[in-house]
Amino acid sequence: MTGRPTLAVVGATGAVGTVLLQILSQRADIWGDIRLVASPRSAGRKLAVRGEEVEVAALSEEVFDGVDIALFDVPDEVAAQWAPVAAAKGAVVVDNSGTFRMDPDVPLVVPEVNPHAARRRPRGIVSSPNCTTLTMIVALGALHAEFGLRELVVSSYQAVSGAGRAGVDTLRRQLSLVAGTELGTSPGDVRRAVGDDTGPFPEPVALNVVPWAGSPRDEGWSSEEMKVRDESRKILGLPQLPVAVTCVRVPVVTTHSLTVHARFEGEVTVDKAREIIATAPGVVLYDDPAAGEFPTPADVVGTDPTWVGRVRRALDDPTALELFVCGDNLRKGAALNTAQIAELLAAEAN
Amino acid sequence: MTGRPTLAVVGATGAVGTVLLQILSQRADIWGDIRLVASPRSAGRKLAVRGEEVEVAALSEEVFDGVDIALFDVPDEVAAQWAPVAAAKGAVVVDNSGTFRMDPDVPLVVPEVNPHAARRRPRGIVSSPNCTTLTMIVALGALHAEFGLRELVVSSYQAVSGAGRAGVDTLRRQLSLVAGTELGTSPGDVRRAVGDDTGPFPEPVALNVVPWAGSPRDEGWSSEEMKVRDESRKILGLPQLPVAVTCVRVPVVTTHSLTVHARFEGEVTVDKAREIIATAPGVVLYDDPAAGEFPTPADVVGTDPTWVGRVRRALDDPTALELFVCGDNLRKGAALNTAQIAELLAAEAN
Repeated sequence: MTGRPTLAVVGATGAVGTVLLQILSQRADIWGDIRLVASPRSAGRKLAVRGEEVEVAALSEEVFDGVDIALFDVPDEVAAQWAPVAAAKGAVVVDNSGTFRMDPDVPLVVPEVNPHAARRRPRGIVSSPNCTTLTMIVALGALHAEFGLRELVVSSYQAVSGAGRAGVDTLRRQLSLVAGTELGTSPGDVRRAVGDDTGPFPEPVALNVVPWAGSPRDEGWSSEEMKVRDESRKILGLPQLPVAVTCVRVPVVTTHSLTVHARFEGEVTVDKAREIIATAPGVVLYDDPAAGEFPTPADVVGTDPTWVGRVRRALDDPTALELFVCGDNLRKGAALNTAQIAELLAAEAN
Repeated sequence: MTGRPTLAVVGATGAVGTVLLQILSQRADIWGDIRLVASPRSAGRKLAVRGEEVEVAALSEEVFDGVDIALFDVPDEVAAQWAPVAAAKGAVVVDNSGTFRMDPDVPLVVPEVNPHAARRRPRGIVSSPNCTTLTMIVALGALHAEFGLRELVVSSYQAVSGAGRAGVDTLRRQLSLVAGTELGTSPGDVRRAVGDDTGPFPEPVALNVVPWAGSPRDEGWSSEEMKVRDESRKILGLPQLPVAVTCVRVPVVTTHSLTVHARFEGEVTVDKAREIIATAPGVVLYDDPAAGEFPTPADVVGTDPTWVGRVRRALDDPTALELFVCGDNLRKGAALNTAQIAELLAAEAN
């Protein structure tokens, strides 16, 4: 590419697409033309990006003519069909779906952790990780570089916007049903009030937590749990890393939280861990519980970094750390990471 | 004691006391007189137990005259002052506060796990564990008996009623503020809407999760996390057991949930683990995610057992199991366990 690269945003009207257009409007503007693309149903709508109204084009082969980098945030099956089309037209695709992440010929990139991986992309596709993986991986990458990671045990507190607009709308509707009531005190009372209106979730999420995200995999695991394990291993370059994950949905709109038990090669100290977290790019240390300082979704939502608090050394294992990590699942967990990858690719071309 | 023992319920008007009176009315009636006791502020109120109205007496030395067993659910400092008074009057005290749990001369009892421990009580006091410990300990006790526990990594999803009536009222008020709004999408918007009305919690709990419960302890740990570690070790008789815990409050009214990563002495199988869980007294296996079966607080609240789902063997460690456990923190987590201990003591006397 010569001059300012042309960018396409495929899935511009979705929950992540909407945030992506905000992010492209906020960050340093390195782009020439920005084309907005969506399903034929949404074509013709006008959306604001960089302060201008841009008309949304319907997804087609022609829409990729002259595109240098195409950001995809679409369902897996749409990415499977169209990312190769865009790549064949000469665009480098940055894909946020699960379709290509574990393909050995597709790098899985977090710019703060493994930017070098983006250079080898034989299929012309670069994948961006799942939002839950992204919530912790920047902080873990920094700690791994210093201490050498040996094992992870992770539990998630996942926001409903991880399931898109339908997830948010479902929680809002359920909250209106349960607010001002005495529900939540007898078996099934919330479920009866909510009825069949559970949206993309298998159970009510208002006044509840639901230990399930994604679809069933072998041996009782969920697809979301397998993604966190497999993607963390690939990004960190640790294909044998033991990773145990339980994914749980909570009644939070946006911002995933994770508890992380991380075991390293040798002894760790909290002081050194805090220093690494405090100085790592894209990570904020917010950790003084006696002063009421620890990250929560209500404060982290809408911000870019990974927030890390509750940093402790395991009392019974000097090689392990406990962390509580929060990150906006629509920003770093999705839109921001794809934008950062696009900027990395643009810089490489110049 | 001869004949039917006389029972005193101290703290009868609190959140746990209210549930305790329901439980005493539902279970086999082995009691003679049941006296209800509370602070002078609540004295004179009449509460229903076993279908009869009973007047609440003010806490005093005389109230323990002729009492065989006294159940205490009061703040730590009240228990510290009054449990020894009741014991000196000849009552066996079953105390649900944190005051005596780690006293080597006070047994910490879960009737399904270590009933024998209740027999040695040199101070005349038996303690009942913290609600978070109780959420998992019956299932873990059964698995430990078969497999031999070596390590625990636990994360909690704790209901607001763990902080008493004030916790429930706070969540209800906050839900009424956030329902029907677009809050939860920009930094601090929930906090601004809630203002100073955070009740017993350090941050808003509606549309949020808060990684803190209890008071600060050394090295960044919370008192609630230390309780789970220390009490689990004492109940299981494993004083060196490595236990890593992170406690998090969630916007659920009643029923605590926990993710548990449990490592054992040797290889485990999911089939054997499921058999143990399915047959252990006080535990229900509810585990078929492909059919939508896993426990959630909305279904477990108001029930007695520990519900266990998401049973998996760690993919990278054949000696470890992953579990998701739910239990009503006011029933088995508090009132039910004290009632069970009282029944154990009554049976021993006969």
